[in-house]
Amino acid sequence: MSRLILSGIVCCLVLRTAYAIPACAQDDEDCRESHMHPDLLSERDRLTSQSRIAGEETTEYWLDQGKQFVKEKLHTPANQNIAKNIIMFLGDGMGITTHSAARTLLGGEEKSLYFETFPHTGLSRTFNVDKIVPDSASTATAYLCGVKAIGGTIGVSGHVDRTDCVGSANVTYHVNSIAKWAVDAGKSAGVVTTTRITHASPAGVYAHVAERDWENDSEVKGDCGTDTVVQDIAYQLIHGEVGSKLSVILGGGKREFIDSKLYAAGKRSDGRNLIEEYKQQSSRNAYVETLDELNSLNVTEVDRLLGLFQDNHLLYHLETNEQSNQPTLAELTRKSIEFLSRNDKGYFIFIEGGRIDHGHHDTYARLALDETLEFAKAIQLARELTNETDTLIVVTADHSHAMTYSGYADRGNDIFGSTTYTGKDGQPFMTLSYANGPSYETFFDVQQHARHDPTTLITGAIYDSFPSTIPLDSETHGGDDVAVFASGPWAHLFSGVYNQNTIPHMMAYASCVGSGLKACSTAN
Amino acid sequence: MSRLILSGIVCCLVLRTAYAIPACAQDDEDCRESHMHPDLLSERDRLTSQSRIAGEETTEYWLDQGKQFVKEKLHTPANQNIAKNIIMFLGDGMGITTHSAARTLLGGEEKSLYFETFPHTGLSRTFNVDKIVPDSASTATAYLCGVKAIGGTIGVSGHVDRTDCVGSANVTYHVNSIAKWAVDAGKSAGVVTTTRITHASPAGVYAHVAERDWENDSEVKGDCGTDTVVQDIAYQLIHGEVGSKLSVILGGGKREFIDSKLYAAGKRSDGRNLIEEYKQQSSRNAYVETLDELNSLNVTEVDRLLGLFQDNHLLYHLETNEQSNQPTLAELTRKSIEFLSRNDKGYFIFIEGGRIDHGHHDTYARLALDETLEFAKAIQLARELTNETDTLIVVTADHSHAMTYSGYADRGNDIFGSTTYTGKDGQPFMTLSYANGPSYETFFDVQQHARHDPTTLITGAIYDSFPSTIPLDSETHGGDDVAVFASGPWAHLFSGVYNQNTIPHMMAYASCVGSGLKACSTAN
Repeated sequence: MSRLILSGIVCCLVLRTAYAIPACAQDDEDCRESHMHPDLLSERDRLTSQSRIAGEETTEYWLDQGKQFVKEKLHTPANQNIAKNIIMFLGDGMGITTHSAARTLLGGEEKSLYFETFPHTGLSRTFNVDKIVPDSASTATAYLCGVKAIGGTIGVSGHVDRTDCVGSANVTYHVNSIAKWAVDAGKSAGVVTTTRITHASPAGVYAHVAERDWENDSEVKGDCGTDTVVQDIAYQLIHGEVGSKLSVILGGGKREFIDSKLYAAGKRSDGRNLIEEYKQQSSRNAYVETLDELNSLNVTEVDRLLGLFQDNHLLYHLETNEQSNQPTLAELTRKSIEFLSRNDKGYFIFIEGGRIDHGHHDTYARLALDETLEFAKAIQLARELTNETDTLIVVTADHSHAMTYSGYADRGNDIFGSTTYTGKDGQPFMTLSYANGPSYETFFDVQQHARHDPTTLITGAIYDSFPSTIPLDSETHGGDDVAVFASGPWAHLFSGVYNQNTIPHMMAYASCVGSGLKACSTAN
Repeated sequence: MSRLILSGIVCCLVLRTAYAIPACAQDDEDCRESHMHPDLLSERDRLTSQSRIAGEETTEYWLDQGKQFVKEKLHTPANQNIAKNIIMFLGDGMGITTHSAARTLLGGEEKSLYFETFPHTGLSRTFNVDKIVPDSASTATAYLCGVKAIGGTIGVSGHVDRTDCVGSANVTYHVNSIAKWAVDAGKSAGVVTTTRITHASPAGVYAHVAERDWENDSEVKGDCGTDTVVQDIAYQLIHGEVGSKLSVILGGGKREFIDSKLYAAGKRSDGRNLIEEYKQQSSRNAYVETLDELNSLNVTEVDRLLGLFQDNHLLYHLETNEQSNQPTLAELTRKSIEFLSRNDKGYFIFIEGGRIDHGHHDTYARLALDETLEFAKAIQLARELTNETDTLIVVTADHSHAMTYSGYADRGNDIFGSTTYTGKDGQPFMTLSYANGPSYETFFDVQQHARHDPTTLITGAIYDSFPSTIPLDSETHGGDDVAVFASGPWAHLFSGVYNQNTIPHMMAYASCVGSGLKACSTAN
C-alpha cells in the first residue's frame, strides 16, 4: 500500500510549530487527567493535519486484515519435524522498544521487520544470578548453555564469581553450549558476529571464563598473574575443545589473536599469532579478511573458515562504503549457510547483530536502529536460503536497553523526530530518548539551567546523540523481558514466558541434540 | 524456594555506598567500551556482596528447570474446544516493562505474575490511524471492535475525526464490539473496571463517540451544541443498544450519570438521573455502591447488576482500607463470573485494571506496579473460578508507557530502589524512571543546576514520584509493542506479532461469535 502523507496535500490547516500544553493547578484533578490524553486540549491541535495511510479509515480494511491473520494461523499447522539445522540469531540489546521503533524506520508502524512475521513468539526473562538487569556475558551462558550465571562470566556456572581465576579453570564448573551438543551429535557448528569474535556473546559458543574481558592473554595475566593456567578467549577459540571444532568463525577482533610485537594493533603478549596457528592446523583451513576474499572463497576447497574483518568490532553498517570491503551481516550469513550446508547431518550456527547494543550504549539511536534493520535482512536471507521443514530459526535478544519510545507523534513522523507537543519548558522533546547515558550534558544548558532545543542538536548525522535523564558515560541495559521469535520445526514450543536459559533446551529438543528431552526420542 | 540474601550473612565485604564510575577520555574507545559493562571496573565493586538465591549457583538447577519447561510444553496439547466463555483482561498502560518490574515487586525476578504462566503469548502492535503512539480510546476500538481508529474516538471507524459531532452520530461509521457479537449469539456480556465505567477502555465495550471526554451530556453540548443528537457515553451505557443489554456493569464514575442539580458531584445538565432510569427499567435490575452491598447481593434474585463505587475512578488499591468499603478488582471479578455463569450459552466479559495507567501518568511507579499486582490477582481468581476446557482468558494492555527499568542493581534489591552506581554527577539513580512527566522539577535543583539525590526524595510513600527527563504535566504513553497472554480454547492462536485489532477476531473464532471465521464452522 502506498504511504500517503496528507500534510500539504489534501487536508485542512497544517500547523508545524510544536504546541505547549498549558499547566494545571496541582489540585485540579480533572485538568491533570485531561493531560493524560492531551490530544483534545485545543482547537489548534484538533485542526492539525494528521498523517494517515490511505485505506486505514475504513472498517473493512481492519476487519479483513484481522480475519486474514486468523485464517493464516489456522492454515499453519504445528511443525513437528526434526530440525536438521538450527540457526540462532541474537540481536544484542534488541529490546522490544528497539524493534518496535525500527519498524517505523523501515517505512512505517504498519510494516514488519522480517522476523516479526514468524508464527511463534515468547518472552524471555533475562535476569542473571547476581543482577536484576544482566550483561551480555551471563546471558550468553543462559541462551547458549542453558544455565544462568554471574554477570561478566561466560560458559561457567554461578559457582564462579567474576574474575575468579581459580574457579574459571575448574572444569567441574564449566557448562557447554548447544554448539558442543550439536558437534557431539555429528553436526557442524559456526559462529558469526559484527563484534569482535571474542566478545561476550559469541564467546558463549565456545569459551569458559570468569571474566568477559579476558579476550587475550595480556588481560588474563593482568588479573590472574603470569603463571596462570587460565586460557584467554581467543586462545580457546583456536585451540579449545569447542572452538577448534567450529567450521565457520566470522567477525572482528583480529587484535586479540596476535602479539603486539608481531602486529601493531595486537593485544597479546605471549608471542603468539593464533591466526597462523589456525592456518597451520590444516591446509584446508581458510582465512579471510575482506569481503572480496570472502566472496572469492571456493567452499569446496576448504574444511574450516576463519574470517576476521577488523582489528576491533566490525564498522557499523552506516559507517561502511565500498572501500570498507567489509561484509554485511547478510553476506556473512549467506556464506556461513553455504559452508555449513555441506554436512548431511545438519548444523548449528549462532549469528549475532552485536552492535545494536553499542549504538544504544552511546545513545546513537540511528546506529542502533539501522543495525536492527541489517539484522532483520540477515534473518530474511537465512529463511530464504533454508527450508522451514527442516531448519529452525530462533531470533532473540540478550537483554533490553533503557530507550523509550514515547509522546504522541503523528503517523508518518520521522522516528528520530520530535513529538507534536513541547515540554512545560517550551522546548520540543524527541520520540526516542534514554533513561541515562553520555548525552546528558549535550542536551542540557548548564549556564541557562535549561534544556536545549533537542531538534537543533539532532541533525540527521549518524552519530546523533539522543537525550538522556541521568549523566553516565555509557547508557545502561534494561531489565524488561525481550522477545523470542521462532520459525520452523517445533517453533510452537517458543510461545509463553520463560527464563532465558530455557531457549537452548527447546532448540535441543527440536534438533535431537544434548542431554535433555529430544523430539526423536520416544522417552518423553 | 527460600530467598536467601547473602549480604551480612555469608559473604565477604559489603559496601553499601554507591560507586561513581570514573570518566573516560572521549577518544579512549576501549575505556568507553568497558563502561558498557561497568561491573568490572574496580576491585571495590568486585568485592561487593551480591545478593543471590540459594541453588541458582548450580548447573543442575537451571538445566532441570529448562528441561521441565520443555516437558510441560510437550504435555500441553493445543486446546481446540469451542470457548463457551471469554474473559478479556486489559491492563491499561501495562507495557512489558511494567509487568517485568511488577514481578520483582511480587518477590523477585524469578517470580511470575499469574498471567505470565499462561502457555501462549503474542505481541500486539498498538499504533492507531493517526498517531504512532496511541491513546486508550482508539485502542479500545481496536482490541474490542477489531478496527483501528483515530486517537480519542471510541467505537467509530477512522472516517470519524476526533470531536466530529456529525460523524459521531453517523451509524454507518459505528463499529461494534465483541460484546455485541456475543449478545447477538445468545451469550451474556459484562464490563468491569477500576476507572469510571464511562472511561475510554470500558466505553469501547458499548459506546460510539468521536470524543472520549463525552462521558456526560454537558461535555457533548460543550462541543456539539445544545441541539446535538450525539448521545453521551453514560447515556449509551444505560439506554444504548449494547449498554442496555449488558448483564454486569461495575466500576466508578457515578458523577457522569446524574444531573448536578440532583447530586452535588453530578456532571450532567439534562436533568436526568440515569441510575434511577436503569432501576426503573426492571425490578430485577440491581444497583450497588459498596463492597458490602455487592457481597450481600443474591444473584438469583436479579437479572442485571450495576455497581458504581465512586463518583470518579475507584481509589487506588493502596489508598483503600476497610472503611473505604470498595471492592478489589478480584472481588469484582468473582461476583461478575458468578453472575454471568448463569447463562448456559456462556458469556463475554471485559475486566480492566485501569489505574496502572494513571499511576504511570503521574510517575507514581509504586501505585502503577501495585495496581499491576492487583490485576494479576483478579486474573488468577478468574482462572480458578473457570475451566480451561471451555473458558478462554486473554490478557493484554492497550499501550505501553515511557517507564524504563535500567541500571544494574543486585538481585534482592528493591525495585523502587537505586542502582549500584551513581551518575557522573555523583548522585545515585533509580532502577525505575520515566522519559517524561511531572516529576521533572522534583528531582532537579534549579538553583544548584544539578540533580537532587533521588534517594532522599523517594521515601516509601505511595505517592513517591520517580524521575523523568522532560518536564510534562503528565507522563506519556509508549509506542513499543505490548504482550498478549492466553489460556484456554484456541489460546495457541495468540502467538506471533499482530496488529492489536486482530485480538477480537481470534476471540470470536474461539467462541463462534461475530461475522468472521468460527471454530464451530466447517467453512474455514
